Amino acid sequence: MTIPHITPTRDDALATLLDKAINNKTKPLGSLGVLETVAKQIGLIQKTAQVELAQPAILVFAADHGVVAEGISAYPQSVTWQMVENFLAKGAAINVFARQNDCALYIVDAGVNHEFGPRDGLLSRKIGPGTRNFAAEPAMTAEQCGAAIDAGMALVAELDGDVIGFGEMGIGNTTAAAALMHKLTGIPVAECVGAGTGLTADGILHKQHVIEAAVARHAGATEPLDVLATFGGFEIAMIAGAMLQAAERRMVLLIDGFIVTSALLVAARLQPAILDYCIFSHCSDESGHQRLLDNLHARPLLRLDLRLGEGTGSALALPLLHAAVNFLREMATFESAQVSEKSA
Amino acid sequence: MTIPHITPTRDDALATLLDKAINNKTKPLGSLGVLETVAKQIGLIQKTAQVELAQPAILVFAADHGVVAEGISAYPQSVTWQMVENFLAKGAAINVFARQNDCALYIVDAGVNHEFGPRDGLLSRKIGPGTRNFAAEPAMTAEQCGAAIDAGMALVAELDGDVIGFGEMGIGNTTAAAALMHKLTGIPVAECVGAGTGLTADGILHKQHVIEAAVARHAGATEPLDVLATFGGFEIAMIAGAMLQAAERRMVLLIDGFIVTSALLVAARLQPAILDYCIFSHCSDESGHQRLLDNLHARPLLRLDLRLGEGTGSALALPLLHAAVNFLREMATFESAQVSEKSA
Repeated sequence: MTIPHITPTRDDALATLLDKAINNKTKPLGSLGVLETVAKQIGLIQKTAQVELAQPAILVFAADHGVVAEGISAYPQSVTWQMVENFLAKGAAINVFARQNDCALYIVDAGVNHEFGPRDGLLSRKIGPGTRNFAAEPAMTAEQCGAAIDAGMALVAELDGDVIGFGEMGIGNTTAAAALMHKLTGIPVAECVGAGTGLTADGILHKQHVIEAAVARHAGATEPLDVLATFGGFEIAMIAGAMLQAAERRMVLLIDGFIVTSALLVAARLQPAILDYCIFSHCSDESGHQRLLDNLHARPLLRLDLRLGEGTGSALALPLLHAAVNFLREMATFESAQVSEKSA
Repeated sequence: MTIPHITPTRDDALATLLDKAINNKTKPLGSLGVLETVAKQIGLIQKTAQVELAQPAILVFAADHGVVAEGISAYPQSVTWQMVENFLAKGAAINVFARQNDCALYIVDAGVNHEFGPRDGLLSRKIGPGTRNFAAEPAMTAEQCGAAIDAGMALVAELDGDVIGFGEMGIGNTTAAAALMHKLTGIPVAECVGAGTGLTADGILHKQHVIEAAVARHAGATEPLDVLATFGGFEIAMIAGAMLQAAERRMVLLIDGFIVTSALLVAARLQPAILDYCIFSHCSDESGHQRLLDNLHARPLLRLDLRLGEGTGSALALPLLHAAVNFLREMATFESAQVSEKSA
């Protein structure tokens, strides 16, 4: 495993050119708000004012988590593989939203506790049949963690397209994500945990205590990759690898909800410049997500109280990215449309 | 002019049916957040759980405002007709976003101070060459106001389609909208005015004083239609009429920014049940908009700091409406997908 070096997108000359192109469009200065910020960011990522957003893809990484043995999820572990079957049958929310937005969808078995066999539409990159229970021992070995990152990088190396959205499925993975968040930001566990797929208040408190005990047990894990191996999941590690590769290839990274953001947090601790390549699709209703976004100085595009995962937020935000690119590509300028500029 | 009677969409039996349909989808309960609320609302509007959203259309109403003589806009009045030309040449932001989202676009001359002559793609419903200056006299006569409402109703009577978005163009129309907002809500003028297309702080203060003086001059106007005739615009009155007709036909009304919301405010004071039919596309950066949305108990879908008008917010929110309809139509249920339900 070699973590790629991510370079910042900063380019003052290009930034000036992009500002000029955006401000010459037939609209009051700044009146497209966040879409102008997004258009400029995509230009800097793509190193051109001739932005485009061809062949969008969403990768959904699925895996199981040993920590479900602690009773930290409202749903049984079998839902992970059942939902993978639902993805393959095209019946889940992410199928609907990806289809609506002409977005390719790849389903990746990063480590589900189920043998699917060879299946159309399923990319098998299984590291193991779920992680171990981090309440008792590290979730994965350093080798498994490295293999998951490598598999994520290899997957993205094979993809074309200008933008990749990331999604996940894994019963128990908000527990892993909350532990990663606490360890890598220092935010108290109580502010990192949430209801996941639907815990009660008591359930959330139990989840908090499970994480706090595990954090005490594995106090030695402090470096990002150690933290990832100790508390993470196969899908989270694979997403982190995929993100690093995507940023190295100067793709736009479309970040989904709490779990995907926790994978980004790991990647950003390894290569901080990766954040230049990220567009944050939404702030989810999972209670730690807002704090995590704040920690990354991220402003999400949507706030729809989603807490479904699967990459649904990424798919729903994709039309806004297209809008940002399209206004820059297609709108008339004051000069070309012969519209008077501001009198003041 | 006969204002149609709008009936509330409330139907407890159908609401229960819709809740059940939404909750049976393969996702944690409530995890699609606002999209679930939207899906249910569309079901209630359409009186069915078999929701659909065919033939979306956006109507952009353009008109000029006599009050520009008071120097309340950063742009000259000629920009209104120049932007209409830009719409017809398909170079404006609304053209780009409507095209991207497969949405029909109709441009309506409600009263622009310019002779376009017969033009492909322009619906001429001109009430006059702009309103009069409401700083000195009522913006329109009661007859003109009624004619504008009638024209809006007639336009929508000819349209098919399940959803209509409303947009506008008219230099000076944030001043008219702020005056309407103040008169119909009682919110102080200072909290209704904003920068419009780009006023300085001094410019905003001047705009406030112009409105305050006009409000004092026309103190007798208190009924919604009087207020509309005194302070409104031809495009605002025509939008109010179009909205009333659309609600009567049980279409979904997609509300844009500050000016369109001010037209809705008038319509809602006439027929409060119209709000049942409204989805609020966004909260704009125009400073009065949030307060106005609060007054209508409205939760907007998007917050992107837009302040462009034209119906751009409506066009940008349209994919979220499609997503709401599509998840309800297309997602598998727990039973059909054989996914385990919550264990608790």
